[in-house]
Amino acid sequence: MSAPQPCPQLAWFDIADPASPDLDELARRFHLHELQIEDCRHRPQRAKTEEHESYIFCVLKKLQPDGRMSFDDVDVFLGRDFFITVHAGPSTAIDRLKRRAEEGNVQRLDRLLYLLLDIVVDEYILLLDELAEDTSDIESEVLERPDPAMLRRIFALKRNLIEFRRISSAMREVVNALMRREQGPVGDDLDPYFRDVYDHLVRTVDLIETYRDLLTGSLDIYLSAVANRTNEVMKVLTVWGTVALPLVIITGFFGMNLHLPWLDVPHGAWYATGLMAISTLYILLHFKRKGWF
Amino acid sequence: MSAPQPCPQLAWFDIADPASPDLDELARRFHLHELQIEDCRHRPQRAKTEEHESYIFCVLKKLQPDGRMSFDDVDVFLGRDFFITVHAGPSTAIDRLKRRAEEGNVQRLDRLLYLLLDIVVDEYILLLDELAEDTSDIESEVLERPDPAMLRRIFALKRNLIEFRRISSAMREVVNALMRREQGPVGDDLDPYFRDVYDHLVRTVDLIETYRDLLTGSLDIYLSAVANRTNEVMKVLTVWGTVALPLVIITGFFGMNLHLPWLDVPHGAWYATGLMAISTLYILLHFKRKGWF
Amino acid sequence: MSAPQPCPQLAWFDIADPASPDLDELARRFHLHELQIEDCRHRPQRAKTEEHESYIFCVLKKLQPDGRMSFDDVDVFLGRDFFITVHAGPSTAIDRLKRRAEEGNVQRLDRLLYLLLDIVVDEYILLLDELAEDTSDIESEVLERPDPAMLRRIFALKRNLIEFRRISSAMREVVNALMRREQGPVGDDLDPYFRDVYDHLVRTVDLIETYRDLLTGSLDIYLSAVANRTNEVMKVLTVWGTVALPLVIITGFFGMNLHLPWLDVPHGAWYATGLMAISTLYILLHFKRKGWF
Amino acid sequence: MSAPQPCPQLAWFDIADPASPDLDELARRFHLHELQIEDCRHRPQRAKTEEHESYIFCVLKKLQPDGRMSFDDVDVFLGRDFFITVHAGPSTAIDRLKRRAEEGNVQRLDRLLYLLLDIVVDEYILLLDELAEDTSDIESEVLERPDPAMLRRIFALKRNLIEFRRISSAMREVVNALMRREQGPVGDDLDPYFRDVYDHLVRTVDLIETYRDLLTGSLDIYLSAVANRTNEVMKVLTVWGTVALPLVIITGFFGMNLHLPWLDVPHGAWYATGLMAISTLYILLHFKRKGWF
Amino acid sequence: MSAPQPCPQLAWFDIADPASPDLDELARRFHLHELQIEDCRHRPQRAKTEEHESYIFCVLKKLQPDGRMSFDDVDVFLGRDFFITVHAGPSTAIDRLKRRAEEGNVQRLDRLLYLLLDIVVDEYILLLDELAEDTSDIESEVLERPDPAMLRRIFALKRNLIEFRRISSAMREVVNALMRREQGPVGDDLDPYFRDVYDHLVRTVDLIETYRDLLTGSLDIYLSAVANRTNEVMKVLTVWGTVALPLVIITGFFGMNLHLPWLDVPHGAWYATGLMAISTLYILLHFKRKGWF
Repeated sequence: MSAPQPCPQLAWFDIADPASPDLDELARRFHLHELQIEDCRHRPQRAKTEEHESYIFCVLKKLQPDGRMSFDDVDVFLGRDFFITVHAGPSTAIDRLKRRAEEGNVQRLDRLLYLLLDIVVDEYILLLDELAEDTSDIESEVLERPDPAMLRRIFALKRNLIEFRRISSAMREVVNALMRREQGPVGDDLDPYFRDVYDHLVRTVDLIETYRDLLTGSLDIYLSAVANRTNEVMKVLTVWGTVALPLVIITGFFGMNLHLPWLDVPHGAWYATGLMAISTLYILLHFKRKGWF
Repeated sequence: MSAPQPCPQLAWFDIADPASPDLDELARRFHLHELQIEDCRHRPQRAKTEEHESYIFCVLKKLQPDGRMSFDDVDVFLGRDFFITVHAGPSTAIDRLKRRAEEGNVQRLDRLLYLLLDIVVDEYILLLDELAEDTSDIESEVLERPDPAMLRRIFALKRNLIEFRRISSAMREVVNALMRREQGPVGDDLDPYFRDVYDHLVRTVDLIETYRDLLTGSLDIYLSAVANRTNEVMKVLTVWGTVALPLVIITGFFGMNLHLPWLDVPHGAWYATGLMAISTLYILLHFKRKGWF
Repeated sequence: MSAPQPCPQLAWFDIADPASPDLDELARRFHLHELQIEDCRHRPQRAKTEEHESYIFCVLKKLQPDGRMSFDDVDVFLGRDFFITVHAGPSTAIDRLKRRAEEGNVQRLDRLLYLLLDIVVDEYILLLDELAEDTSDIESEVLERPDPAMLRRIFALKRNLIEFRRISSAMREVVNALMRREQGPVGDDLDPYFRDVYDHLVRTVDLIETYRDLLTGSLDIYLSAVANRTNEVMKVLTVWGTVALPLVIITGFFGMNLHLPWLDVPHGAWYATGLMAISTLYILLHFKRKGWF
Repeated sequence: MSAPQPCPQLAWFDIADPASPDLDELARRFHLHELQIEDCRHRPQRAKTEEHESYIFCVLKKLQPDGRMSFDDVDVFLGRDFFITVHAGPSTAIDRLKRRAEEGNVQRLDRLLYLLLDIVVDEYILLLDELAEDTSDIESEVLERPDPAMLRRIFALKRNLIEFRRISSAMREVVNALMRREQGPVGDDLDPYFRDVYDHLVRTVDLIETYRDLLTGSLDIYLSAVANRTNEVMKVLTVWGTVALPLVIITGFFGMNLHLPWLDVPHGAWYATGLMAISTLYILLHFKRKGWF
Repeated sequence: MSAPQPCPQLAWFDIADPASPDLDELARRFHLHELQIEDCRHRPQRAKTEEHESYIFCVLKKLQPDGRMSFDDVDVFLGRDFFITVHAGPSTAIDRLKRRAEEGNVQRLDRLLYLLLDIVVDEYILLLDELAEDTSDIESEVLERPDPAMLRRIFALKRNLIEFRRISSAMREVVNALMRREQGPVGDDLDPYFRDVYDHLVRTVDLIETYRDLLTGSLDIYLSAVANRTNEVMKVLTVWGTVALPLVIITGFFGMNLHLPWLDVPHGAWYATGLMAISTLYILLHFKRKGWF
C-alpha cells in the first residue's frame, strides 16, 4: 500500500509508508516544504499545524487500537486541490475516513480534513470513558484495599492521564488554529464543524483535569488508609501489651523465692488470680472508654 | 408534552423531548444548524454559547432537583423572533420560567433568556449554601472524629466541589459572552441584568475555590490528627512498658534459684516491693516532667 | 438615622437602613438601576464597581469593628451632583468620613469617595499587621508545642487569610477600575490618590500571600515535629525494651527448675548480676554510638 | 547630613533624613506630589514607579548591609533638571553612587538613576550567591542530619527566599516600566543599560524559584529521612523483641512448678539452652533473609 | 585559537577566548554594544536575544559534553555582513557548525545561525532521551527498593530537570523572538527552519514537565512504600507479641510459689502446654482472618 492512491472524485493521496519515494514525488509536485517531509519521516512529532502559501500542514495524534494508551502520527497536507495523508502501516482511522467519504459522497477536500479530525477525536472520547471508569473503580476500592497493587494502578492511570492531557491539549490547539484561520484551503462554512471538534477536545482536557484531581484524592485516601492501619496495629499491640503487664508482674511477684504473703494460704492462688482479673477488667474498661476498640 | 408550545404573546417553543420530530421541524423553519440539533440530542454537552447570523445557541447546565449534585442540559435558541428551549423530560426550571413570564407579563424574548439564566443560577446559590454548610460541618468535626467515615465525607464533598466548579465556570463564560456581545438578539439595555447573573457566577466560582482550600485544610487536620493519635498510642505503650520493665526484672531476679540476698530475711518481700515502688515512681515522674501525660 | 442626610455643602445622602423607603425615593430621583438597589438590600455582595451613564456604583467591603474578621458592605453611588452611601446600622467608617470631610472642608464628591476608600483600606492595614503578628507567633511556637491547639490556631488563621485575600483582591480590582476610568464623575487629578489606595491593596494581597506561604511552612514544621516526636517515643521504647530483654532472659534462665550451673555456687547470684550489668552496659553503649540518645 | 547636597555639576539633592524640612522645600520647588512625599516618610513602601508630567518617582529596595536579609527604601525623583534621593540614615549605596558618579564624570541625571539601580541590583546578586550556597549546603547535609535544627534552617532559608522573591519581582517590574517608557526624563539610548539591570533581575527571580524548588526537595528528603529512621527504630525493636519472645517462654516454661520433662535429667539445662539457641538462630536467619538488617 | 577566523566565503569570526583583545577589535569595527561585550566576558548569562539597529545579539546555552548536566554560553552577533561567535575554550558545537557549513556549502549568515541552533538543540534532544530513561528506571525500581540511595537518585534527577527546564524555556523564548522578528538580518524564508527548532524546544519543555510529574509520582510511591514497610514491621511485632503474651502469663502463673492447681497432677505440664497451644492457635487464626499475614 505504498503507492499514492488517488480517490476517484477527490485528489486524495494516501501514503502508508512514510519512507516511500512516492512522498518525495508528491513533495516535488505540490511544492511541500522539506522540513515537513522530514517531520513525516521522523516520528513521533508533536501535534501541530503550519500554514504555507498554498497549503496547510497538520500533524494529528491518532490513538493506536492496541488497547494500551499509545498514539501514532497522521500527517496531513491540505491544499486547494490536493489532500495528502501520511501514516505508518495500516490505519483504521484512514480506512474509516475512506468509508465515510464514500458513504457521504464527500466532494470537498476540507470536509475530508474535518471528517478525519472527527474520527480521531471520537476515539479520544471512547478512551476518556474508559479512563473515567478506571478512576471511579480506584476511588471506590482504595479504602478497602490499600495495598501496593492499588498504588501501582493509581500511578499507571496517573501516567496515562498526564500523557493523554499532553496529547489532547496539543490537538485542541491544532483545531483552534484551523478554526480561527480566516483564509486558506478551509472554507469558513465549516467553522461550526471544526468548532464542534474543538468543543469535544476542550471537554476532554477539562475532564482529564477532573480525573487527575480525583486520582490525587484517591492517593490521599490511600496514604491516610495506610496511616490508619498502622494506627490500628499499634492500638492492638498497646491494648494487649498494657493488659498483660500487670499479669506478668503479679505472676513474677509470687514467683520470687522470698517470704511472700499468701504463700501458705490454701486459696492464695485464687487471690492472685482475682487480682489479675480485676487489673485486666480495669484496663480493658479504661481503653473501652477511650474508644480504642 | 412533546408538541411545540407557542406562548400566547411570545414565539416561545418548548420541546420536552429532544428526540421529537418537532425539533427537526423547528430546525427547518428557523434554519438551525444541524450540529446544534445534534448537541440537543447527545447529552450531556459542555455549557457553551455559539453565535450565528440570525440567532444565538446556548447550552445551559440546570441543577437536577434530586438532591444529589447532578446537572442536566437546557438548550436554548434565541433569535429575533423565536425562543426555543429543549430539555429532557419535565423541568422545574422551565415551569418556573413560564410562571415568571406570565406574572411579569414579559414581552421580550431576550428577557426570557435572562429570566431562565436567573432561575438556573438561583439554584446554584442554594446549592452553594449547602456546600458551605457541609464544609463548615466537616471542619468542626474532623479534629474530634478522624475516622474513615469522615475521610469519605471529605472526598465526596471534594468531588462535588470539583464538579460544581467545572460547571459553574463554564456557565460564567457563557454569561460573559452573552454580556459582551455588541449586536444580535440580546438588547444592550439588558446588560446590567446579565452582569448581575455574571456577578453571581463569579462569586460562586470564587467561593467554591475558598471551600476547596478549607477542605484541603480539613484533610491536613485529618492526617495530622491520625498522626497525633498514633503518637498518643505509642506514648501509652512506651510509658507503661518502661514502667513495667524494672518490675519484671526485679521479680525475675528474686525468682532465680540461686543464693540471693534477702532470701532468708523475713521482710525480704517488702524490701523488693519497696524497690519496685521506687522504680515505678521514678519513671512516672520522669515521663511527667517530659510532659508525656 | 434612616432619613437621608444631606451634607450642608455636599449632596451626600447617607442611608443607614437599606430597607428604608428613602432609598427608593433616591433611586427614583437619580434614576438608580433597580438591580443595584436590590444589591444594597441583599447583603453580602462581592466588592465590585459598575459604571452607568450618569453615575458609578460601588460595593465596598468594610471591616467590622468586632475584632473577629468579618466584613460588611458599604454601597456607594457617585454621580456628578450626588453621593449616596448605604450601610446597615451605625458605621464607624461613615462617621469617620463625616469627620474627615468636615475637618478637611471637602468640597468635591469624588474626593469623598477617595476618603471613604482610604478609611476602609486603612483598617485593612491594621488587620494585616495583626495577621502578620499571629503568623510570626505561630512560626516561633510551633516547634516547641506541636499540639492540637496549635493546629487549630494554624487553620483558623489560614481560614482568615483565605477570606481576607478574597475580599482584598476584589477591592483591589474595584480601585483599579476607578483609577483606569477615563471619563465620568471621578476627576483625573485624583488618580494619584486612588493609585495610593491601589498600592496599599496590592501590597496587602502580596503580604497575605507571603503569610500563607509562611503558614504552610508552619504546618510542615508541625507535621514533621509530630513525626519527630513519634520517632523519639519509639526510641525510648526500643532502647529500654532492648536493654531489658537480656535481663529478663537471664533471670528467667536461672528461675528454671532444672539442673543449672552456679546453682550451688555461693556467689552465683553475683555472677548472674555481673552478666546482666555487662549486657546492659554493652547495649547502652551500642545505642549511644548510634546517637539514639 | 540633613541638608540637600547639590552636586557640583549635577542637580542631585540627597536627603538622608526623610523627616527633614528640606524635603518639603524641594517638594515645593519641583512640584512633587504630596502623596509621594508621604511615601518617603512612611516606610517601608513597595518597590514601584510612578510617572508624572515633569518627573518620575521610584521607590527602590536596597539591601541593608547588616548581614540579615532586610531591605530599606531609597526614594528617587528624576526630573529633566533634578535628581532627588531620599533615604533614612547613612547609606552605602548612595556613597558608592557618589564615588562612581565622580569617577565616571557622569553628566546626565538619567545615567545617575541607572548607576543607582546597578549598585542596588549588584548587591542582590551577592545575596543570591549566598542563598545558593545555603541551599546547596542544606541539600547535602539533610540526609545525614535530619534533626530539628536542620528543619529550622530549611524554614529560615525558605522565609528569606519568599521575602527576596517578593522584593525582586517588584523591582523587576520597576525596571521594566522604566525601560518601556517612550518619553520622559530617561533617554532612550540608556535602554540597553536598563535592560541589562532588568536581565539581572529576571535571572534573580528565576534562580530564587529554582532554589525554592530545591529547598522543597530538601524538605521532602527531611521528612522521608525521619520516616526512614522511625522504620529503622521499629525494626530494631521488632527483631530483638521477636528473638527474645521464645527465650522468655522457654525459661518461663521450665520455671513452672509442675512436673516437667528434663527436670531430673542432668543435662536438662543444656537441652533447654540448645532449644533457645536454635530458636534465636532461626529467627535471626529469617529476618536476615527478609533484609531487615 | 584566539585570533578571529574569517571563513573563506563567509564573514564568520570565531572567538574561542572571550578575554581576547580580538573581541574588542571586532566590537569597534562592527559597533557592538559595550554591555554585550561584557556579557560575553561575564559568564554564565541567561539565554536571551537583543535586537540592535544593525545586528542581533543572542546568548545560547550549549550542553557541555562532559556527561554531567552543565551548560556553557555561546554568544552570537549576527549582522547583515558579519557573524561572530564567542565561546570559552574549544567547542564541539562550533566544530560541528564549521563542518556542516562546509559540507552544505552555506552561503548565508542567517543560515549559519539556524544551523548553530539546530546543533545546540539536537544535543538537548539526546539529553532528554537520557532523562526519560532515568525517570522510567526510577519509576520501575522505586517500589522494590525504597532506600535512601533511591531517594538521592530521585532528587538528583529532579534537580537536573529543574535546571534543564529553566535553560530550555529561556532558549525557546530566544528562538520564538528570532522567528517573530519581521525585519533584520534573519530572512523570512528561514522562518520554517526556526519554527522547526522552536517546535523541538516546545516539545522539550513539555516533556520535562511530564517527567517532573512522573518523578513526583515516584516520590509519592517511595514515601508510601516506606509507610507500608513500617506498617509491615509493626504487624510482625504485634502478631508475635500478642501470641507470646498469654504464654508468658501462663508460664508465670505456674511459676508462682502458691498452692496452684495441677501442681501434683502428673500430666499438669501437658495441660499447661495444651492451654498455651490453644491460645496460640486462637490468636494466629484471629490475625489470619483479619488478613494481617
